[in-house]
Amino acid sequence: MIAVLKSGVTKAQREKLTQWIESQNVRVHVSEGEFQTIIGLIGDTSRIDMDLLSSLEIVEKVSRVSEPFKSASRRFHPDDTVVEVGEGENKVKIGGGNFCMIAGPCSVESEEQIITVAKAVKAAGARMLRGGAFKPRTSPYDFQGLRGEGLELLFKARKATGLPIVTEIMNAAHLDMFADVDIIQVGARNMQNFELLKELGRSKKPILLKRGLAATLKEFLMSAEYILAEGNPNVMLCERGIRSFDTYTRNVLDLASVPMLHELSHLPVVVDPSHATGVARLVKPMACAATVSGADALIIEVHNNPTCALCDGAQSLTPEQFAEVAERVNELRTLITR
Amino acid sequence: MIAVLKSGVTKAQREKLTQWIESQNVRVHVSEGEFQTIIGLIGDTSRIDMDLLSSLEIVEKVSRVSEPFKSASRRFHPDDTVVEVGEGENKVKIGGGNFCMIAGPCSVESEEQIITVAKAVKAAGARMLRGGAFKPRTSPYDFQGLRGEGLELLFKARKATGLPIVTEIMNAAHLDMFADVDIIQVGARNMQNFELLKELGRSKKPILLKRGLAATLKEFLMSAEYILAEGNPNVMLCERGIRSFDTYTRNVLDLASVPMLHELSHLPVVVDPSHATGVARLVKPMACAATVSGADALIIEVHNNPTCALCDGAQSLTPEQFAEVAERVNELRTLITR
Amino acid sequence: MIAVLKSGVTKAQREKLTQWIESQNVRVHVSEGEFQTIIGLIGDTSRIDMDLLSSLEIVEKVSRVSEPFKSASRRFHPDDTVVEVGEGENKVKIGGGNFCMIAGPCSVESEEQIITVAKAVKAAGARMLRGGAFKPRTSPYDFQGLRGEGLELLFKARKATGLPIVTEIMNAAHLDMFADVDIIQVGARNMQNFELLKELGRSKKPILLKRGLAATLKEFLMSAEYILAEGNPNVMLCERGIRSFDTYTRNVLDLASVPMLHELSHLPVVVDPSHATGVARLVKPMACAATVSGADALIIEVHNNPTCALCDGAQSLTPEQFAEVAERVNELRTLITR
Amino acid sequence: MIAVLKSGVTKAQREKLTQWIESQNVRVHVSEGEFQTIIGLIGDTSRIDMDLLSSLEIVEKVSRVSEPFKSASRRFHPDDTVVEVGEGENKVKIGGGNFCMIAGPCSVESEEQIITVAKAVKAAGARMLRGGAFKPRTSPYDFQGLRGEGLELLFKARKATGLPIVTEIMNAAHLDMFADVDIIQVGARNMQNFELLKELGRSKKPILLKRGLAATLKEFLMSAEYILAEGNPNVMLCERGIRSFDTYTRNVLDLASVPMLHELSHLPVVVDPSHATGVARLVKPMACAATVSGADALIIEVHNNPTCALCDGAQSLTPEQFAEVAERVNELRTLITR
Repeated sequence: MIAVLKSGVTKAQREKLTQWIESQNVRVHVSEGEFQTIIGLIGDTSRIDMDLLSSLEIVEKVSRVSEPFKSASRRFHPDDTVVEVGEGENKVKIGGGNFCMIAGPCSVESEEQIITVAKAVKAAGARMLRGGAFKPRTSPYDFQGLRGEGLELLFKARKATGLPIVTEIMNAAHLDMFADVDIIQVGARNMQNFELLKELGRSKKPILLKRGLAATLKEFLMSAEYILAEGNPNVMLCERGIRSFDTYTRNVLDLASVPMLHELSHLPVVVDPSHATGVARLVKPMACAATVSGADALIIEVHNNPTCALCDGAQSLTPEQFAEVAERVNELRTLITR
Repeated sequence: MIAVLKSGVTKAQREKLTQWIESQNVRVHVSEGEFQTIIGLIGDTSRIDMDLLSSLEIVEKVSRVSEPFKSASRRFHPDDTVVEVGEGENKVKIGGGNFCMIAGPCSVESEEQIITVAKAVKAAGARMLRGGAFKPRTSPYDFQGLRGEGLELLFKARKATGLPIVTEIMNAAHLDMFADVDIIQVGARNMQNFELLKELGRSKKPILLKRGLAATLKEFLMSAEYILAEGNPNVMLCERGIRSFDTYTRNVLDLASVPMLHELSHLPVVVDPSHATGVARLVKPMACAATVSGADALIIEVHNNPTCALCDGAQSLTPEQFAEVAERVNELRTLITR
Repeated sequence: MIAVLKSGVTKAQREKLTQWIESQNVRVHVSEGEFQTIIGLIGDTSRIDMDLLSSLEIVEKVSRVSEPFKSASRRFHPDDTVVEVGEGENKVKIGGGNFCMIAGPCSVESEEQIITVAKAVKAAGARMLRGGAFKPRTSPYDFQGLRGEGLELLFKARKATGLPIVTEIMNAAHLDMFADVDIIQVGARNMQNFELLKELGRSKKPILLKRGLAATLKEFLMSAEYILAEGNPNVMLCERGIRSFDTYTRNVLDLASVPMLHELSHLPVVVDPSHATGVARLVKPMACAATVSGADALIIEVHNNPTCALCDGAQSLTPEQFAEVAERVNELRTLITR
Repeated sequence: MIAVLKSGVTKAQREKLTQWIESQNVRVHVSEGEFQTIIGLIGDTSRIDMDLLSSLEIVEKVSRVSEPFKSASRRFHPDDTVVEVGEGENKVKIGGGNFCMIAGPCSVESEEQIITVAKAVKAAGARMLRGGAFKPRTSPYDFQGLRGEGLELLFKARKATGLPIVTEIMNAAHLDMFADVDIIQVGARNMQNFELLKELGRSKKPILLKRGLAATLKEFLMSAEYILAEGNPNVMLCERGIRSFDTYTRNVLDLASVPMLHELSHLPVVVDPSHATGVARLVKPMACAATVSGADALIIEVHNNPTCALCDGAQSLTPEQFAEVAERVNELRTLITR
């Protein structure tokens, strides 16, 4: 970390500053220039509060040379993290060259629905089942999910198909109910619910952490760091679109974040083209684009509700559409990993 | 709510749709135009899932005529909500023409610190004390607050000065510890932590709800609706800056949201110029601007740490600077309410 | 277009409004509901000023059913526009299933440089040469390009290689100098320089129109409409990243805009992964992602400056790196068009 | 400017870099640390291309200590710039403690209209008249202004009232027509039309430069620098709202930019609450907020069209509403400058 002091800072002020920095167990290297003085902070600066330092009256500017995330950083952990779930023939690996597709409905609605979709997406090549039991909704009057009952139905679907399950948690108090879930998802709106992240860090469950709507990559990795710092190494990062000023798509899918996150971190990167766009017709091209961007997994919404033709056209794909996406994605994976 | 159907929709498709809508207890008014058919949804459409409706294949576009927030809407509650806290001479009202200043340090650090600051801000005209006991920090390595001990120190400061206290909750499981807090703050990062909002709705404590970094006013009001819908009418909205592309200030203070929120809702609107800008020098002009924009209260960071000259220049003001802001703000209030 | 009137509007007010609308040569269809009145505007509403209409005191909300762009819209021109440049074996088509790669340096620096790069990118598979003669720079003190001399060097490079050339115009007064350019580029900062767009509409030159940093797709297409409306049908749209709050990449490449623009419009869509990311290491994955998203062309920065090792690592690729990108892109094109 | 080198950079690489920097007439100060080497660039670094430098493979990070704008910077010009227009009793000063209100219609429509409005706003306290002759419109089908005829009508209105006039230029080729305009406005969409800025820099006319929709303050000041660097010192900066994700207001008025621009620059800062919000009801609170934020002038849309009740409620105020705003603004100015 480097702090540039304002011109006109007295020696006494400077020494007060360096003493304070050294009291944080960080060494100081002062470089006096003709017009300004630069202070280098050497050692474990991840614990230095950069906001505080840069707000001091005598400081012109502070910049980090190394990133404040340690456990999430590739610098200190060059090898890819590989997350494993499932057993036997249903074992699935994500990261380190292992790729998979995760599919399922937005919400678990009934036993018949979730088992039918699970079988259909498995047949089409999905290796994991997603489905919301607890649903974060902007309006308190929208459907909030089947909650505990939804989890039970997911377990039944896993039993019926062998597919490991991914589902979202919204409250640390529910952790016991999630004991048998394979991957716990943290939604975009909870990306900085730090109390929840700490609790998940103390569990050893694999976590799928979704990027917040307006989160920088640094904030995203710092949220992963909250989980890692508590001792849980099984974190996957999920790009799901960020907020912008345009309204043709629900969010803007930031695909450059995929190779950039791989450069910054050893954690697997998952892409959710369904929530990112909110438009079923865009899921196929964005799933393909995410694949060749280097995503380690895709998570895609698929429903199967023949009695309700109304749902056609939602951001969800039909099983047939998903099968088509899966086939193309697999061809692309084969090409780029040849 | 109005749904415009795509051209070429068959009568059978249209009837399936209207039957489904009517099954949601909403009446339907069909207007067949030369080129397109418009369906008006009449009744309590706040429970209609607009995302689902607009994603249907036969639907071109959906727009709400009335807003989806009911309890937060001024349309149904024309009179301003007034939130009251404190007792006797320390009673404070916010909203409905009542204005107050809330001040205090970012974090509670020690008994001496919080009591000293509390006395200083009271002397300068603050009617309530703020101070963080539980601190949401981007990095797990930054100071996380004194937590339970911090709450105890706030209670001591209240006892010493009579000032009611405002402090942030990060976890519904802590609600018991907050039983004696006067106003519970929900931070920007938890604005869509819906499980927390529901719990706070079941308490009767006044809630200061901060706007999320990338929250639209509609989402902001829907989060207030989560609290109101559970039966707690004591909600205040707090504008604290939104995220943008510029870096000179930490966030962009959206002051037009103050009169706009007053138009849309009966809830009091509070402005936090300290977090919005992150720059102490900007707090005074933005506090003044917020006042004449019609804010019902200001919440301002003030510290008092004469032994640590290092903290000068932070986003916090000294008590002397706060006194100067308070004087000007009071002059402006007098002028605009004359 | 649909206008929803506020409740309480009198019959006289409504009639004044409908008379005004009809005076714009648009027919009106009034649908009186129980709670609100909806006015449908039928006919060529592209000439109705939606901002004006929605600002009227008696109007609650206005929404367009059809888009305000006519000439750019696929609705009225279902067939893909194909832009053709070059002669004989150097003829290049873009759009309607025709794909090509455009490559070259950010700035034209010297005859040797531009000819060397032109030959190198041609050998690697580029079908067109890009190169800046007039350079828009944020700072007046940064290099502004060789201007007229740069154009001359581009013509020499075309002569040496046969590659048609693409270069940016910044001033309508320069149009004569651009008479022999194959494709004229309008930069992101000039996307709403309407006077320039009109002039380019009166020329018949193919135009590569770059999306503005904060332009919605609708604004982007309306800018294309400015050119088309003046009689020039040869417009290509270029996605080059939009502005966001993150700083790891220069902009956010909005790849979902590629299939969305194809749905909305018949115009070819080009992607610029170099400017979108500002990071050479991200150009290959984003070029691949753009290809499978359905881009009709890619425009990529390539430099060749062996005497200046300093330039390594810029957003530009070396010819060798470009050859690698081109090979992979071609494999992907083969796969997705099979 | 400071460049931090990557670890592992060889001495030869470093020397190549320092030689290149020195060839730009900038001195170099190397500080070798334990883990990294820092290069300080001393002298006129405003001409160093920071993008190029930070893209070099051996460079980890570059940060500016001083800002790249020289002529616009308060650092080098501590005294406020005061712009003067008009003659005799109609002389108006902006900046350096001088404040004024500018008002008038969005577009000049007819002689009667502009003269009526000019008289009305003068009576209400405006010291300058605004009015669009050339109108930048998103759609080519929307009204584009009376153009040259509109300028003539503005001159007539000036003659009738004495009010100096402000009007927008869209094309450098029109400069001759603007020879008699008092203040030339550059619209937000042309903020980075660098060819236009250079031409305006060669004129000596006072320029009102509007901030681009997604322009950082640095980019805004760099655009001012384009004008200043050509020799025209009469530049005013105009905050008129930036683009965000919300839709309740047209843009977000960034009022903290007012004191921040005053800190960074000596140029006067004007605020346009009409375009910033797009909502007439918000103009008064935002005009008041801008005033107490320290704005040197306000520019407000006022129309007067009694025969067309349709226009009520637009972003424009009636003369009566403007008079009310002006009165309150004047009271606030008196209070804050006491």
